[in-house]
Amino acid sequence: MVTADIEISEVGPRDGLQSIAPVMPTAAKKAWISALAAAGIPEIEVGSFVPASLLPQLADTAELVSHARTIAGLAVAVLVPNLRGALDALAVGPHKMTIPLSVSETHSLKNLRRTHDQVLAEVRAIRAAIDALPASQRPRLEGSLSTAFGCTLEGEVPERKVLEMAEKLVAAGCDEVGLADTTGFASPKQVRNYTRKLWELVGRERLHGIHLHNTRGQGLANVMAALEVGLTTIDSSMGGIGGCPFAPGASGNIVTEDLVFLLESQGLRTGINFERLFAARRLLAAALPGVELYGFTPAAGLPKDFVAATAQ
Amino acid sequence: MVTADIEISEVGPRDGLQSIAPVMPTAAKKAWISALAAAGIPEIEVGSFVPASLLPQLADTAELVSHARTIAGLAVAVLVPNLRGALDALAVGPHKMTIPLSVSETHSLKNLRRTHDQVLAEVRAIRAAIDALPASQRPRLEGSLSTAFGCTLEGEVPERKVLEMAEKLVAAGCDEVGLADTTGFASPKQVRNYTRKLWELVGRERLHGIHLHNTRGQGLANVMAALEVGLTTIDSSMGGIGGCPFAPGASGNIVTEDLVFLLESQGLRTGINFERLFAARRLLAAALPGVELYGFTPAAGLPKDFVAATAQ
Repeated sequence: MVTADIEISEVGPRDGLQSIAPVMPTAAKKAWISALAAAGIPEIEVGSFVPASLLPQLADTAELVSHARTIAGLAVAVLVPNLRGALDALAVGPHKMTIPLSVSETHSLKNLRRTHDQVLAEVRAIRAAIDALPASQRPRLEGSLSTAFGCTLEGEVPERKVLEMAEKLVAAGCDEVGLADTTGFASPKQVRNYTRKLWELVGRERLHGIHLHNTRGQGLANVMAALEVGLTTIDSSMGGIGGCPFAPGASGNIVTEDLVFLLESQGLRTGINFERLFAARRLLAAALPGVELYGFTPAAGLPKDFVAATAQ
Repeated sequence: MVTADIEISEVGPRDGLQSIAPVMPTAAKKAWISALAAAGIPEIEVGSFVPASLLPQLADTAELVSHARTIAGLAVAVLVPNLRGALDALAVGPHKMTIPLSVSETHSLKNLRRTHDQVLAEVRAIRAAIDALPASQRPRLEGSLSTAFGCTLEGEVPERKVLEMAEKLVAAGCDEVGLADTTGFASPKQVRNYTRKLWELVGRERLHGIHLHNTRGQGLANVMAALEVGLTTIDSSMGGIGGCPFAPGASGNIVTEDLVFLLESQGLRTGINFERLFAARRLLAAALPGVELYGFTPAAGLPKDFVAATAQ
């Protein structure tokens, strides 16, 4: 197994599928998750523990966690909006749970129907539930700073608010925080600035990853800023499916296939095999007829005589 | 007038229109060029002096140069494949002439039907023709290093070949050289590496610009590398029209609208006004019915409360 320089966290099965109307059959999801893992993706967010009435597309998350847990070496991540979701998650044992907190409180109320204080109370309750488990069974808990780079409803989100919420998430019991450009407002300057300031505030070991959208075509340019400053985990979605369905105009995760090419072509190992990655994409395309998949690299193919860093 | 931190060289009227089947009427081209200039674009490549039988789309280049020359402050650039084209260009007085040399000789033979030595002989003849003019009437002559980052026909293009061709172009009389990712193979590492090595070899004053394609979605990520190393002129095309029609699979210039957003959002002034830029795009869309225009920023709109660096 290749040691990756940069870890890709595939969010398609959660962030992608939740935005798409057709429900992907559980068997197809399992096959897709297995294919992603076989391609070398080190971490997959397989679903979200939300009520099935809200997101019927993700109603099989528990079953997917159990399936993904059988894949050796794969880190299994899930989204949990609250304690109730976290308890359901803990019953099946993911390696990582992410709870989003919208730094824009307007967006928080609209998206999660909760104030900041209410979300932080959930975090504390989740922390207690985790700590009640034997140490070997405790998943990592990440607080995701949604709308950190700006909000379609509030506009500019003040930097001090981002820092304050990060500190509060850690104080409430998150092992780490993540930056999320929910609305596609981020600039490279912000990515560098927020990462450095958060590292100063909560410690470098508490912030590894970033979740970027391609709403204004800036996704991979922002990845360059993330690499420059030293972040090591990048979220992306196969075929660029998904985005935030609650932020009007915000659509399009960065495309895993193009991200892997960006990294491998500049000598950064992802541990991912392109042929198998494209095979996983074909599997996804077959399972979601009528859903548009994005990505330039799958369309253009790899450059003639290209050798990936991982293959060297 | 704002002093730009980064100059955008709009290549749509040349590189864009040459790849598109429908011929845009001359009056519409003039209106588009004027609208681009009114938006603050500092340099426009208005056409190419190739035989009308080869590219009927660009048969009105001389008239467009004359029109563009009437716009105060605008740098008017053209492509010239050879001495004959350069003489036609010199008759109407552009500020800059670019002659492409494909570093991959296979591509050179296929694209320009000339060996390296034959292209360099044309450069020397063009230099002599320029020098025969009074100093005040001499345009800058740029040699563009096409396929510098790899070739769809030859695969990897050796670094020593890129450096050798740059040196020979300067020796043959080019005032400057430019890097061109004709095939969409470039990685950020290559962009930084080639820029630094060329600066060492031919002097920093002889390399300012880069021409990047978005074939594998890497265009703006490569722009980030260009900015990091210190290049100051970036080619792009409104709506991303164009690319190299002779390189199979290579399509898609980087999108001017998304590039301007990338620069302005991180505090780099382009001198460009978004409202007028989007107006120029609407004009282009109306003049090219049925031609697909790319770009995420025009579709998503600017972020709420966004203030461009140029407007500050």
